[in-house]
Amino acid sequence: MFYIIGLGLSDEKDITVRGLDAVKGAARVYLEAYTSILMVSKDRLEAFYDRPLILADRDMVETQSDEILHQADELDVALLVVGDPLGATTHTDILLRARTLGIPTRVIHNASIINAIGAAGLQLYNFGQTVSLVFFTDTWKPDSFYDRIKENADLGLHTLVLLDIKVKEQTDENLARGRKIYEPPRYMSIPLAVTQLLEIEALRQAGTLSADTTLAIALSRVGGGDAERIVAGTLAELAAQPVDAFGDPLHSLVIVGKRLHHLEVEYAEPFAVDRDRWRTVASSVYGCALD
Amino acid sequence: MFYIIGLGLSDEKDITVRGLDAVKGAARVYLEAYTSILMVSKDRLEAFYDRPLILADRDMVETQSDEILHQADELDVALLVVGDPLGATTHTDILLRARTLGIPTRVIHNASIINAIGAAGLQLYNFGQTVSLVFFTDTWKPDSFYDRIKENADLGLHTLVLLDIKVKEQTDENLARGRKIYEPPRYMSIPLAVTQLLEIEALRQAGTLSADTTLAIALSRVGGGDAERIVAGTLAELAAQPVDAFGDPLHSLVIVGKRLHHLEVEYAEPFAVDRDRWRTVASSVYGCALD
Repeated sequence: MFYIIGLGLSDEKDITVRGLDAVKGAARVYLEAYTSILMVSKDRLEAFYDRPLILADRDMVETQSDEILHQADELDVALLVVGDPLGATTHTDILLRARTLGIPTRVIHNASIINAIGAAGLQLYNFGQTVSLVFFTDTWKPDSFYDRIKENADLGLHTLVLLDIKVKEQTDENLARGRKIYEPPRYMSIPLAVTQLLEIEALRQAGTLSADTTLAIALSRVGGGDAERIVAGTLAELAAQPVDAFGDPLHSLVIVGKRLHHLEVEYAEPFAVDRDRWRTVASSVYGCALD
Repeated sequence: MFYIIGLGLSDEKDITVRGLDAVKGAARVYLEAYTSILMVSKDRLEAFYDRPLILADRDMVETQSDEILHQADELDVALLVVGDPLGATTHTDILLRARTLGIPTRVIHNASIINAIGAAGLQLYNFGQTVSLVFFTDTWKPDSFYDRIKENADLGLHTLVLLDIKVKEQTDENLARGRKIYEPPRYMSIPLAVTQLLEIEALRQAGTLSADTTLAIALSRVGGGDAERIVAGTLAELAAQPVDAFGDPLHSLVIVGKRLHHLEVEYAEPFAVDRDRWRTVASSVYGCALD
């Protein structure tokens, strides 16, 4: 059996009991390398699971999955992934490959950012499509996310924006010399994300986003107890916060849609950079009837 | 501390290790009565958690939450809910009430149908807003869901349709006589849901849904191993299946949007009522380039 097991969003204790049973019974256990995004190290996971973990980078999972699936028709093999196996990052490729090889599969679900974003107090019913925002370079500023946000905003819906991560990047020099030396992972910060969003708004001028009258909520380490951070405010307010106000990565950002309920405003208010401004914009721009 | 703990979607082993620790350390543990929707009984949960559970119906959770929160500033109290605490059914009311009472809170996340729907193999990125479908009566056929599905469909997005549950219903006679005798829970079946969808399409005639050319995927008991059922097909095909083809409730339905990828078609194909028709409609109506 090939198990693909969601680890949830925070640390080693977010695995489900069913997932932990499968880990303990597996002949080989792979850990997708993105898992460095959890708040915990591989060592700590190994100690908790009482099992050695084999690191698997995205490339291995996506294009060399036969190594992971080797003998999984006879043995139990587990692949651990952050969040849910079929959440923001899908793993349908390796499941399809297992199917082709006649290997039975089982997905063990867990929280992913797609549903845990409910921690912001916004109704998941009122989210539109999810978008990803990549690091801009001087010459490459892909902006199709803007159309998606506009489609959602025109319907009054919230948008979950997932921020880019760079892992296994090489310097130009190392790349040129064929040296497999990788830079430390880079995570997009909330201020950078907001700056990029407003840069495209200035270019497109469709009035979808406004520094002073669009509300947004930043989240990190959702479910991580003391490590969890939720910060709410206008785009300008979020852009002006120091990077460490948002806690440790990964960060996610929600652009608040106009179909906003007064209970949602009230729930997020304690997380607001400026509570008065939060209420004022919700009331005067979003039309929420507040006490 | 007031803990609100997601149980996931299937049985007692879907709780996270963090959630189980909190249950075991709590002075009182409440189980939201919707939890009868899990595949397991209260007894089995109590045996697994090694704790007695106090049943709490929705009314108690929503309007009489002070009883649940009693002394939670000094003791640990846990409320167990199916799925994620802030998923398809939100629990922001009780969290706001706890905040007002000065009680610290902690949400322990888990999978909910909002993200586990990825089990259908469809990209969660391409879902629009989620809708609920209630049981129609002769005189009450609320149809605002149709506008939401149309908004999603016009953008090419998938729609997750959550099907109605009736719990704690009384017969007219019991109601009239003030007898607190409740009928067994009723769950909407997939064929009934499809029939209601097509009834509103016939009324509105906006061309959003078509019996023969709109694809959909029905899911139940997601993550439940052998109990999980996924059935894919045209709306007409799903309506024509016997009710038991869809497994045990709760059922969910995805209306497939036109922004469909050939890998999504391939992933769901083994679950199709008629594989040839599934591929033919995906190719000729949805424009997917298949092998």
